[in-house]
Amino acid sequence: MILWELSQLIRQVYIHETKIRVRYAETDQMAYVYYGNYATYFEVARVEAFRHLGFSYKEMEAQGVMMPVLEYKSKYIRPAKYDDLLSIHTSIKELPSARIKFEYEVKNEAHELLNVSETTLVFINSQTLRPCPMPEIFLTLLKPFFEENKTF
Amino acid sequence: MILWELSQLIRQVYIHETKIRVRYAETDQMAYVYYGNYATYFEVARVEAFRHLGFSYKEMEAQGVMMPVLEYKSKYIRPAKYDDLLSIHTSIKELPSARIKFEYEVKNEAHELLNVSETTLVFINSQTLRPCPMPEIFLTLLKPFFEENKTF
Amino acid sequence: MILWELSQLIRQVYIHETKIRVRYAETDQMAYVYYGNYATYFEVARVEAFRHLGFSYKEMEAQGVMMPVLEYKSKYIRPAKYDDLLSIHTSIKELPSARIKFEYEVKNEAHELLNVSETTLVFINSQTLRPCPMPEIFLTLLKPFFEENKTF
Amino acid sequence: MILWELSQLIRQVYIHETKIRVRYAETDQMAYVYYGNYATYFEVARVEAFRHLGFSYKEMEAQGVMMPVLEYKSKYIRPAKYDDLLSIHTSIKELPSARIKFEYEVKNEAHELLNVSETTLVFINSQTLRPCPMPEIFLTLLKPFFEENKTF
Repeated sequence: MILWELSQLIRQVYIHETKIRVRYAETDQMAYVYYGNYATYFEVARVEAFRHLGFSYKEMEAQGVMMPVLEYKSKYIRPAKYDDLLSIHTSIKELPSARIKFEYEVKNEAHELLNVSETTLVFINSQTLRPCPMPEIFLTLLKPFFEENKTF
Repeated sequence: MILWELSQLIRQVYIHETKIRVRYAETDQMAYVYYGNYATYFEVARVEAFRHLGFSYKEMEAQGVMMPVLEYKSKYIRPAKYDDLLSIHTSIKELPSARIKFEYEVKNEAHELLNVSETTLVFINSQTLRPCPMPEIFLTLLKPFFEENKTF
Repeated sequence: MILWELSQLIRQVYIHETKIRVRYAETDQMAYVYYGNYATYFEVARVEAFRHLGFSYKEMEAQGVMMPVLEYKSKYIRPAKYDDLLSIHTSIKELPSARIKFEYEVKNEAHELLNVSETTLVFINSQTLRPCPMPEIFLTLLKPFFEENKTF
Repeated sequence: MILWELSQLIRQVYIHETKIRVRYAETDQMAYVYYGNYATYFEVARVEAFRHLGFSYKEMEAQGVMMPVLEYKSKYIRPAKYDDLLSIHTSIKELPSARIKFEYEVKNEAHELLNVSETTLVFINSQTLRPCPMPEIFLTLLKPFFEENKTF
């Protein structure tokens, strides 16, 4: 009973932090990061989350599986500014199947929360352009983070 | 009575259509429009919707009111491709107050629905960086579209 | 003799004008168009110059010939600003061979010269990734502009 | 005499190396980095060259001096690809006055030379929008690299 409750407390999640420095090109005349540029930050963040796990997005594409975005939601809380060193926390909170959902939190150096977003992507066979299962190796690398008795 | 019911049937909305040709720079190696570039298309679409109404976003900014984005949601249904001539239907479905919500539908030349999105923006005084009411002239131009007995 | 001199006076050139409206995304916090974004304007300008000639860059790529840029030079004379409706004059001044050179002049609505640039591109076979001759049809469409007794 | 000749042999230059990972957003459907995106890499490279020197471009702008680009030249030798970790060598080869020239070399992880570029920028007073001398502190930090008897 208590064990069961404990397992509920332990968050089953894979989290990774990426740092991104705001480029001049990414600002607009409001002197904020242009709202469309966060999407690029999240692409970098999830690819780095993959790399940290030991998985290369580039290699997956080379082997014929690509991951287009199906859905993207973004809340802009405070503006990011030029030269800010942003921290992006990327989380995978559910073991993915054909789809994979990433959640992101963006903070600046003053630890202010700037943006909260999520993206849902799908695995696609680049020959058939049809959904396909996620690569075996990716599942193997990710699974330990979603086991009840994980010991990280 | 019937008149009242009719007025319910008539959609109270301002809709504008903008055409945007996909640039090579906007594609990625998947040969799709990069998911982050739609945000720019929607910025163009809402500024053109304003211009068609007789309202200049540029002038509003020059007079000290700017409109950062608070929230953005995007669903990617089919990919847009290089050189596609996209039609973007931009709708304002509620008379805005301090906030303004835009909804967008993106179609290609084959009339296929590619993307459905929405953005919520806020009017900000660029001196105080605090929310402010929308400019009087904008309200005046937009109001007729939200009156019961509109005769367009 | 006179005929020969006249033919020297008549500029042998293909010129096309494209209009591009500056997007908010393209500005930076200097409130100028970011210097890197002109490259995209020139890509649009040369593709539209092709289209006007009756030649589709998209189709050429679909048939296995692509045109990467070899060299790019840009002089920034006056800044372009948000919402400016730019006129870009694109010229091909020599009948291209394996390489093709485009020259560009960017003006704003006040006819001020903002930027002068040039790009040199090469025709590449997208299978072999090696240089290839320009497509026959493109040469046929372009040639009349470079004949001595042209009658435009 | 010999000392003088030696001082000619010792290159008077400030060089800095920056690493930049190619983002998916920066590729195009040719599966190369889009030619316009190098300009952003060079902006990052020169700002990091400044930072390494102990000079903050951001602070300089905050104090009323900005640096627009006057001229940009770029030669594309080999394509950069997605996920490449690029090395950018940024050099200042002459002690700047009102203008400052940066030269760049881009290499991939296989040490292949991909691109050689240069940019000339000018110091501008952001109030008057007129050229101004470079900030005293920047000159002080840079000068030692251009002295005859430098001992690096």
